[in-house]
Amino acid sequence: MEFSSKLLERAVNEMSQLPGIGKRTALRLVLHMLRQSKDQTMALSEALQSMRSNVKFCKSCHNISDIELCEICSNPNRNETIVCVVEDIRDVMAIENTSSFKGLYHVLGGKISPMDGVGPHDLNIESLVSKVKQGIIKELIFALSSTMEGDTTNFYIYKQIQKYKIVTSTIARGISVGDELEYADEITLGRSIVNRIPFETSLKL
Amino acid sequence: MEFSSKLLERAVNEMSQLPGIGKRTALRLVLHMLRQSKDQTMALSEALQSMRSNVKFCKSCHNISDIELCEICSNPNRNETIVCVVEDIRDVMAIENTSSFKGLYHVLGGKISPMDGVGPHDLNIESLVSKVKQGIIKELIFALSSTMEGDTTNFYIYKQIQKYKIVTSTIARGISVGDELEYADEITLGRSIVNRIPFETSLKL
Ligand SMILES: [Zn+2]
Ligand SMILES: [Zn+2]
Repeated sequence: MEFSSKLLERAVNEMSQLPGIGKRTALRLVLHMLRQSKDQTMALSEALQSMRSNVKFCKSCHNISDIELCEICSNPNRNETIVCVVEDIRDVMAIENTSSFKGLYHVLGGKISPMDGVGPHDLNIESLVSKVKQGIIKELIFALSSTMEGDTTNFYIYKQIQKYKIVTSTIARGISVGDELEYADEITLGRSIVNRIPFETSLKL
Repeated sequence: MEFSSKLLERAVNEMSQLPGIGKRTALRLVLHMLRQSKDQTMALSEALQSMRSNVKFCKSCHNISDIELCEICSNPNRNETIVCVVEDIRDVMAIENTSSFKGLYHVLGGKISPMDGVGPHDLNIESLVSKVKQGIIKELIFALSSTMEGDTTNFYIYKQIQKYKIVTSTIARGISVGDELEYADEITLGRSIVNRIPFETSLKL
């Protein structure tokens, strides 16, 4: 792609670094910005800068938060003895949307995937294990997507916390195997939390 | 969509203002930025800001340019007597890519579309007519997409410049009717420029 302007070229190149955005799409988006008011592009880029510079992660559950301890973790009406383990903050949003869960979350930040070079130490697993060790948590719900990586991650964590004798469960597989959690409809996802099964049982399925 | 962070929410909302980017996609892109280094988000937002603030349009052809008169218009090896009329700078890029055209361009900035509220005065038509009036241009090639709006725009311009007795042509319809120019393959697009037909002839097709 030959550009008539270095400024345009740089903007397109930067946009096309984003996943799923090719050069053509990036060019279409950038030309759209040129048709819109300058204020809109400024608002977009300031929002991205400010988000990237100032966003915090909850020191307990690792969810994105503007405060040290997120609103879920600091809510006295939530049951701190049940913790739902998820890959990603999108999963927290999806489960919160069902209003079926009143415990806390733990965001791993991904799943173990040797193919993608993601090992246990790249994820928030240690802090989960040390929370379990503290003795407040009575049940851990594994709500990772039911892929090989999800299962590997569940099992890795399970082995680490097994000795603490807490209840471990996985969300009911109302969600079809291989499907991403965040695309599940609210009812299926809500039901799969309510009908969760002991993790040991899930190993035999 | 409920967000755990205002910073995140604002970034997602701004991203989802872009055409074809829904809330879910915006969230996916923003979370990707959080996984990348801060420098990458800064580079993206600075590139967008700088492009939007400093980009210029060639005073003659209205192509995007970092200088007053673009590289094509100021190139003495280009034939200034043949001008190819296009909708968009993407069309300039597509035609330049074929290396089949050595004249100049005129970027209209769209096509007449009453449905979208785009009239002749929203486009760079007046400056084209005044260029024709000056007498240097011998031929005008209409290279707009062959849609109803494209045809309307061609005809509107044709009526304005008819009295100056220059040659008018349209690119050969090797490109299937209704197709966007920028998605045509190079050979088809190149050939359609070489085999252009007089505009008057195209009216009878
Ligand atoms: Zn938290
Ligand atoms: Zn120019």
